[in-house]
This record gives sequence, structure tokens and C-alpha cells, in this order.
Amino acid sequence: AIRYLSKRRQERVGLIGDWLRRQRFDLVLLQEIWSEQDYTDLVARLGSCYPFSHYFRSGVIGSGLCVFSRFPILDTLLYQYSLNGYPYMLQHGDWFCGKSVGLLLMGGLTAVLPPSSHQLHAEYCREKDGYLPHRLVQAWELAQFIRHTSKAADVVLLGGDLNMHPQDVGIRLLRGCTGLRDAFAEAAHFEGCEDGCTLIPKNCFTIKTELLPFPQGIRIDYILYKAVSSFTVQCEELRTTTGTAPGMDIPFSDHEAVMATLHIQRQGQAVGDSLGTTVPTLADVVTEAQAEVGVGLRAAQRQRYSTGRMAVLALLLLLLQAVAALGALVGLGTEQPFPKLSFSLLAFFAVGILLLATGLHLFHTMEVKMLQGTEEQLRMVLRVLQEQ
Amino acid sequence: AIRYLSKRRQERVGLIGDWLRRQRFDLVLLQEIWSEQDYTDLVARLGSCYPFSHYFRSGVIGSGLCVFSRFPILDTLLYQYSLNGYPYMLQHGDWFCGKSVGLLLMGGLTAVLPPSSHQLHAEYCREKDGYLPHRLVQAWELAQFIRHTSKAADVVLLGGDLNMHPQDVGIRLLRGCTGLRDAFAEAAHFEGCEDGCTLIPKNCFTIKTELLPFPQGIRIDYILYKAVSSFTVQCEELRTTTGTAPGMDIPFSDHEAVMATLHIQRQGQAVGDSLGTTVPTLADVVTEAQAEVGVGLRAAQRQRYSTGRMAVLALLLLLLQAVAALGALVGLGTEQPFPKLSFSLLAFFAVGILLLATGLHLFHTMEVKMLQGTEEQLRMVLRVLQEQ
Repeated sequence: AIRYLSKRRQERVGLIGDWLRRQRFDLVLLQEIWSEQDYTDLVARLGSCYPFSHYFRSGVIGSGLCVFSRFPILDTLLYQYSLNGYPYMLQHGDWFCGKSVGLLLMGGLTAVLPPSSHQLHAEYCREKDGYLPHRLVQAWELAQFIRHTSKAADVVLLGGDLNMHPQDVGIRLLRGCTGLRDAFAEAAHFEGCEDGCTLIPKNCFTIKTELLPFPQGIRIDYILYKAVSSFTVQCEELRTTTGTAPGMDIPFSDHEAVMATLHIQRQGQAVGDSLGTTVPTLADVVTEAQAEVGVGLRAAQRQRYSTGRMAVLALLLLLLQAVAALGALVGLGTEQPFPKLSFSLLAFFAVGILLLATGLHLFHTMEVKMLQGTEEQLRMVLRVLQEQ
Repeated sequence: AIRYLSKRRQERVGLIGDWLRRQRFDLVLLQEIWSEQDYTDLVARLGSCYPFSHYFRSGVIGSGLCVFSRFPILDTLLYQYSLNGYPYMLQHGDWFCGKSVGLLLMGGLTAVLPPSSHQLHAEYCREKDGYLPHRLVQAWELAQFIRHTSKAADVVLLGGDLNMHPQDVGIRLLRGCTGLRDAFAEAAHFEGCEDGCTLIPKNCFTIKTELLPFPQGIRIDYILYKAVSSFTVQCEELRTTTGTAPGMDIPFSDHEAVMATLHIQRQGQAVGDSLGTTVPTLADVVTEAQAEVGVGLRAAQRQRYSTGRMAVLALLLLLLQAVAALGALVGLGTEQPFPKLSFSLLAFFAVGILLLATGLHLFHTMEVKMLQGTEEQLRMVLRVLQEQ
């Protein structure tokens, strides 16, 4: 819901509000509510059924994350990803928003809202996916964040657009390291789009060319959960909308809504936290992720080098110009007039290149550091796994 | 330890390495090791006594945080502050580094390394301290981070330069919300600088003018701790260096080293996590912090407005120029030659102002959002406290 850009935004926000009021869920997690005005409208509309709500503020545009709940929200925390696309990829916009993971504490329930990012939507680029290392760093950071913040929780819930297919290495890393279970795979009863897809060609707001290789659509929105202490969680039912909002002629959003009915039960003795998969499987996933991060690291190092070289060249050009200007000042080459206009245009050009290349160089330096840090953390995990 | 800038850097890093090897601490937390080469040198020097070490990578320059330990480091996490000074205050450098809090898990011990920031060092500006709201947001985020990540820990340890005096609202907020205790106040035995000061005029690397209002020095480096579950922690001894390194003629650093001997004991029954102060005192601290954050918010809103206005003015100037250039092209005012040089210089100037003002506007927009978010979280805490 981007102001002035998204189609039929206010109408859809209104429909979402009416529908949520009728459905009376316990907990609603929303992404991409970019305009705080829309959030305020929803609060006004939903206040009677969902007395507790929170909007996570961050970045230039905002996180777009908000939550409505029938139960009190006791505490919140925002965690920023260290890597989030490139600032110069303006059309993806990820760098300016969506950098933050939101966390809610509601008694023993810890609910996590991932930021939605647009880096995967270009499905036609899946073969040469330059963003993969960034997404892996994010999946890893999300897993680390969940592991570190949910130790004292009874139940952990992660819901939202993860922009990864169920078999992608990022999802396997996240699930393997946290032990989160996929509501779609576990549901006793399912109702909705085929294979649980949440981005489908039938939805009139999806971009059809992006979905060409996937005629059924793709499943990239998840509800994941786990029980940590003396509780069990079972997914009784999972539903998705199917292209249009129930009883309407337009969809709520380009993504289908995902709704889960979870049965949470206290059991006798406390059980320890466990990994999601066996140790050898997890070690394989971590190795795979490490290789991909390594590929990204080498690309970032190349870019850091080439932007640095460009900055140095621009600086040399400026120095050359300074020498030429000094030469003209002390009276060398007075036989022909000094070309003031082209000279100042060239200087303007050189300064521009210098600033741009320096900025990019700093950015890629940061990228290299973060990828190195993640690679090292993955190595540490792998060592611990191998010792087991 | 900044390469090429810090005085006698390599000599001091060598001294620190030798001394740590002789002292055989259990755990060493270091800040401002900006050069990874220095870290690698320390690892080579200390490998035999401290077999476990970690360097936290982040930002353009790095976090500067590293740790050496006699016991295994099982897991690490890096958390980025959302606000950290202004990118245009190059001389403070905080924006380019020191943005991240490091967390270590070592069995039941959670150790936290805060980033060191330079925003408080200008002690002569303590009266009109424009950074106070940023520091409060950081103190709040640090408190939140510790609360959310340490729930399953036995013992939590926070050590480093917090850049706040013991009575500052930020320290009171941090201690009140987390229940962390100050090793200096609790120590059975103390040995070192008067009042536990860690930035003293006697140290030859401190800037004397900054310490003029404090002839004894100031205490801004802390070791804070708490026991969470069925443990008790007591500080048996606290020591600081006193201007020079023991047995040397120069100090290790401009800050004095702080060393604590903690006695950790398992006790019979588990005790719940408790707040550091009584509810009314904590409510007062939160109210005070909220007021300061409000002041910062209004300042940020003013700056957002004025930078936005400047960007609009620069855009108008460019539009005017475009109109003038079009006029010249279609042949208006041909009686006098078109002033190409001054025209392109003016355009250059306007583009520069436009870019600068837009960048600043985006930055202050982010600042406003983060301050609003913190103010709201503080309000939520205050409501919970008032209900108690």
C-alpha cells in the first residue's frame, strides 16, 4: 500500500479493515502498510475488536509492519538487517525501507514479523540471482534473532512474506537453525490456492510476466511456528484467499492472505529447544549457504575494487585539471584562449564521478564486511555441528 | 587504535597483548580495535592463553569490538542501533562505525559489548548537548536488547565505554530497565583511580580541555552484571589502571582499563528476573527520558522541515534556470550574449545544494521516525508501570 502509487489503495485498506473486523482473529500481522495514515485508519476501524495494536517505525519510509491483537502486547523490539539490497537500486526500494524485523511479546507468545523485500520478485532472474547472498545473510540474521530472543518463550510464531520458495536454501537454513515448523506442511486441513501458493497469476494485481515460469503461482508467504517450553502447537487448519477477497470482486493485495488456526496446549514436562532437522542435514544446508555467501563475498570484493579504482581515476582527472588551471594562471599556453566552459563541465563531471564512486566504494566495503561476518558465523556453527 | 592517526598504536597494542598474556583473565572485552590487523596480531600473541576469540564486523570501518576468552564462545549476535549521530559530523565518526552491540553466548553467561561512541567526549558542551536524545535512544535500545536476549541466561555481563556519567538519565534508564548492577558500587574491594574514574587528566592521551570541569576525571567505563536464574553474582574486587600501564611509562589507551573479579555461585532455588529499582523510581526515570526524547524529536522535526525547504528552493532555482535556458534557445534576449560560465556554475551549485538538502532531509526523516518509535515504546512501558 504505497501512497499515490498502489492501485485502489484506500478501497483495499477499507476492505481489509471490514473483513478483519468480521473475522475476529486473535492476532493479525500486516506487512507493507507504508502509510501511517492507513495504519491510523485501521486502528480507528478495528479498535473495538482488536484493542491492541502496534506500528514499527524505521528507515526513511518506515518498516510497513503493523500488528493488531485481541491480547495485550507487552513489549516490542525492532532489529535491523545489516544488509538490504543496494541504495542505487531505487526501483526495488529495499534499501530505503523494509530493513527491520519486528518482535512482539504477548505473555508466553513471541511473534516475529519479517520485513518484506522485493528482491525475489524478479522471478525471471532466478538463474542469475545477484541478491541471493543478501537474502542468505538476512535468513541467517533472522534465524539468529529468533534463536536469541525466543529462549524464554512458550510459543514462537513467524508470519509473513519471506520472499523465498519452500525449497530455497534460505528457508532451509532458517527452519533448520530455529526448529520452526511450516504451517502449510503440518496443517490437518487446508483450503485455498493449489499447493498453498500466495502469489498467483489469477490475482489481478500480480505481475504476470514474473510468474510465467510458475503457471500455478509460488508460495513465498509463510506461517511458521514452534513450541519452546512445556507446550505443544498443532496447526488444525490453514487457509488462503484465492485471488479475490471473499465476497468481493478485487483482491485485498497482490499476495494472498494466509490464515492459520493453531491449537496450543500445555503439556506435563518441559521439553528442551530442538533443532528442526538432523545434524547432518543441517550441516549440509549450512555448507550450501556458506558457499553462496562466499560467491557474494567475491562479487562484493570485485565491486569494492572497481569502484575504488574509479574514484582514484576521477581524483587523478581533477588533479590534472588543477595542474592545467594553474598552468593557465601562471601564463603558460596563452597563445590560445582558455576553454572555460568545457573545463568547468569536465570538472563538474569528475566531481560527480568521484562522489558517486566513493559512495559506492563505502557501500561495497560495508557489504564485504557483513558477508565476511556471516561467513565466519556460519563456519562457527559448522564447527559446532561437526563436533556433534 | 586508529591506523595512521592514533599515537604509538602498534607499541600500545603490543603492550596490551603482553599484559593480557601475563594476567590470564577469564574474559577480555576490547573496544575500538579499528584495524583488523591489530586484532590478528593480538590473536597470534594471545592464542595460547585465550584460545577463543571473536571480532565483530560491521559498518564501513568496523565495530572495533573484539573479545578474547579462556572459555568457548558458543554463539554471537550483532545488533545495530537505529540512530547513531549524524553522517555529516565527520569529526565524530560515529555514523561510520560503532553502530553495533555485540553479544556473546558462553554457556550460561551472556556477555554484551556496547559500541563506544564519541558523542559525549566534548564535555564542554554538556550544557547544550544535542546528542542527548540519540544517546537516550541508544541506552533504551541497549536495555531492550539485553532484556530480550538474556531471558535464558544465568549471568549477564555488560562491559565497556558507555559514554555516560553514573548519574546520567541514560545509565539510570539502562540499569532500571535491565536490573544490571554496577561493579564499582558493589565491589567489596576497590583499587585504582579516585571515584573509579576511567578518563583522567593524568593520562597523557586524554584531551585536557575536555576534562577541565572535572579535575579528578570522569567515570564512563563500566562493568555491569546481573544474575538471572538460580545464580548469585558478587563483585569481590574492582581495579582500574591509573594513568600508565602497570610497570610501563605510557598508558595502554586514553581510557583506563577496568578489571573485575566476580564470584558466581549457584544457589538452591531459581529466582525470577527483577527490575533494578522500585517501580516509582523507574517510572520517574522513564518520564525523564521521554521528555528528553521529545525535545530531540522536535529538533529533528525542525531540521527535517528546514532541509526539505532548502531542497525545494534549490529545485525552484534549477527550474528557473531551465526556463532561462529555454528562453535563450528560442531566441529571447539575444541583444546580450548568454553568460554560459556563470550559468553552468550556478547550475552546479544548485544541483549540489539539492543533493545535499535531499540527503539531509531523508536522514532527518529517519531520525524523526526512530525518535517517535522510542517515545512510543517509552509510553508503553510507562503505562505498564503505572498499572503496577
